[in-house]
Amino acid sequence: MFRDLSHRIETGMPTFPGDPDVALSPTATIDADGYRVHELRCGSHTGTHVDAPSHTEPDGDDIDAAPIGEYVLEAVVVDATGLAPRSPIPDSVVPDRLDADVLLVWTGWDDHWGEESYADHPYLSPSAAERLVAAGCGVGVDALNPDPTPTARASDDEPSGFPVHGALLGAGLPIVENLTGLGTIPDRVTLYAFPLPLADCDGAPVRAVAEFDDA
Amino acid sequence: MFRDLSHRIETGMPTFPGDPDVALSPTATIDADGYRVHELRCGSHTGTHVDAPSHTEPDGDDIDAAPIGEYVLEAVVVDATGLAPRSPIPDSVVPDRLDADVLLVWTGWDDHWGEESYADHPYLSPSAAERLVAAGCGVGVDALNPDPTPTARASDDEPSGFPVHGALLGAGLPIVENLTGLGTIPDRVTLYAFPLPLADCDGAPVRAVAEFDDA
Repeated sequence: MFRDLSHRIETGMPTFPGDPDVALSPTATIDADGYRVHELRCGSHTGTHVDAPSHTEPDGDDIDAAPIGEYVLEAVVVDATGLAPRSPIPDSVVPDRLDADVLLVWTGWDDHWGEESYADHPYLSPSAAERLVAAGCGVGVDALNPDPTPTARASDDEPSGFPVHGALLGAGLPIVENLTGLGTIPDRVTLYAFPLPLADCDGAPVRAVAEFDDA
Repeated sequence: MFRDLSHRIETGMPTFPGDPDVALSPTATIDADGYRVHELRCGSHTGTHVDAPSHTEPDGDDIDAAPIGEYVLEAVVVDATGLAPRSPIPDSVVPDRLDADVLLVWTGWDDHWGEESYADHPYLSPSAAERLVAAGCGVGVDALNPDPTPTARASDDEPSGFPVHGALLGAGLPIVENLTGLGTIPDRVTLYAFPLPLADCDGAPVRAVAEFDDA
């Protein structure tokens, strides 16, 4: 069966601080035109999306560079729920023997979608990112960011910059952000994360879908 | 294997007459911000996309109403190449015994992408649409529209309005437009056409992908 792991894209939805606002507004109507069309304004990292290496790497590949089959990802799901706001996710969530294309880290932080606290998600440590790179495995999170997101509530204890992004995207490994529903799927799924084909771009929104056998 | 059947989304790309222009422009850069982000402006029917019933049907469902598995489509591909501009596609392209979720009609008109003539594609007749509805099968085209697209070059012989849209969307059957590369895939494939999750919207861009066995 297939399960949608994507947030809806709608006017005023949460974004990364400083990213373009999202607006979806009608431009053609049944009454005036005989059909309906909307205009969408959003960012390349709006909602559930995939980061391209060029998001943080000066010479990184754009989102349309990879063969499409590379966005069909064998995924392992791990439980990282119950953590405090802005706390590190234990490195032990990265399995010792990890044979997957992407590790989906279920933090449960998608429960905060639409709240100010959504930006205060737990984050991966640089050493967890190193373990992922060693395994040749990307990461997907049900949060805004695998790195800490800068807000007024950030503490000096947090890694600065985007070390997890740098490690994974520098190694050409995928990062999927703003997933939802990771607690509703088995611990091994196939993740379809076909990004919108934005030309020469640093990332793209995606309808992320998990496929797994019915229990 | 997987094959991308989608046009790239880029500034100034072809659109349906009157639809929103497409623009993709940088809003964050490595030099200024440490990472790259773009803003996208487009329409709900930009590029390769799926129409929702609400595109033409006053009470039709929006694109986010269907369970995600309904966008995994068993597809049959038929050859409708070599037709003249603005000519009807013979009804005989719709097989008598059609067991599929979507009929992909390969017109070859994607060769005209970016040219004025792209709007002068062949089109399905209302009777072909009736055959599809009787088979419970949607349609995908490598052209702007399964109906004739209104331009200055339209003739009085063409069906007026959007009869194919009305028949298929009225029956809750999918329409996929602006596909590309239909001549590069076998005659039976699985089509993944997961639309971007635009909220309460009449359609959405999609990264359309075919899966088939290696020959």
